[in-house]
Amino acid sequence: MTIILYDLAGAEPARRFSPYCWRIRLALAHKGLDVETVPWRFTEKETLPQPNAGRVPVIVDDGRVVHDSAAIALYLEERYPDRPSLFGGAIGEGLARFVQNWTEGVLHPALIPLLVLDIYRHIAPKDREYFRTSREKRFGMALEEVVKDREKRLPAFRDSLDPLRRTLGRQDFLSGAAPAYPDYIVFGAFEWARAISDFELLLAEDPVALWRTRLLDLFGGLARRAPAYGGS
Amino acid sequence: MTIILYDLAGAEPARRFSPYCWRIRLALAHKGLDVETVPWRFTEKETLPQPNAGRVPVIVDDGRVVHDSAAIALYLEERYPDRPSLFGGAIGEGLARFVQNWTEGVLHPALIPLLVLDIYRHIAPKDREYFRTSREKRFGMALEEVVKDREKRLPAFRDSLDPLRRTLGRQDFLSGAAPAYPDYIVFGAFEWARAISDFELLLAEDPVALWRTRLLDLFGGLARRAPAYGGS
Repeated sequence: MTIILYDLAGAEPARRFSPYCWRIRLALAHKGLDVETVPWRFTEKETLPQPNAGRVPVIVDDGRVVHDSAAIALYLEERYPDRPSLFGGAIGEGLARFVQNWTEGVLHPALIPLLVLDIYRHIAPKDREYFRTSREKRFGMALEEVVKDREKRLPAFRDSLDPLRRTLGRQDFLSGAAPAYPDYIVFGAFEWARAISDFELLLAEDPVALWRTRLLDLFGGLARRAPAYGGS
Repeated sequence: MTIILYDLAGAEPARRFSPYCWRIRLALAHKGLDVETVPWRFTEKETLPQPNAGRVPVIVDDGRVVHDSAAIALYLEERYPDRPSLFGGAIGEGLARFVQNWTEGVLHPALIPLLVLDIYRHIAPKDREYFRTSREKRFGMALEEVVKDREKRLPAFRDSLDPLRRTLGRQDFLSGAAPAYPDYIVFGAFEWARAISDFELLLAEDPVALWRTRLLDLFGGLARRAPAYGGS
């Protein structure tokens, strides 16, 4: 049975830019499960199936509603144990939390001040006022001010990827010789960027960029075919 | 057969402060293997069994010499597959590299400017000139200058632990419900600090401090019994 995924969409319904939803798109592909995505906008909170926390991803699997990307990944692992594993056991599952917390505590906060205006430009018109108001309140300044001089901040951003870069300099994937859910957690951040911005975050020869290319190639180019800007 | 571990020692032979050697002390205990440690000093490069890279840890297991902490952990996992696993499989092994690179690229560089003078004060007298000269060259200033105002830098240090803190706020160990090699990688950094410094790095209620206490309790208090300063 096809799983339904509520997936954050931009002004164009095909442009999907939630890093959390990308994790689940790839997790579903990893498990070889069929999916039908439903484009969803920030301000459509009432259209999500219950229970939810007002955010995507939310999946519906044969009547079961599961929300929150980490909970969905654990659900898929438990519900479909005979499919390829997302975590490779309890230790991998524990360490995936660390990867998630590094991604959300270091990588996402480093990306937002580079990309927030690009996000604004791509979201549905009805979402824009909500987005600008909430984000400008958070930053205490206009979105245009937040991204000013972002080129100068690129070296510091690239330095912050050092633990990832060192790892991918030694092995093809964050999870070792083959990709698994922790790769999708980090890759989701780069898909978010690629979906809404032509700002070149990575140098072409960066091991992180080479890994991103490998992720774009996975599952018959699932991520590569999505509407996005360059970024290999 | 008892495994020999060459282990960095201070002026007191019992004071062991290499973060890399601590990883292996705990990995050997995790595998339930007997060990005899040989205290070793920075300047005793000629006393290490061959092959080595002039650093510890080096182990000798039934005539086999293995050096480099990551290589030793992989060796133990392969050589003693029936003992408790250090990695829990290929994905855990892949992610352990990320934990290692975060520890060596973020945690160690954050600790050194706080602790370098304490290290100097605890190493063997014959190692001191080598240590001061090499480290002052690296920092471009006297060790006393490097650690000046370290209290002011504590909040930034604690912030840098955020991915670890968020993870340990949700689960008892970095590797999940039970400890594994990635825990020992990070804990090694704190053992290094605790062995040579009374500088309080963590607040008592910090989830990272509570995790450190759990690690100190492991294996009959193996780490707790080692000569060290407070730090729970």
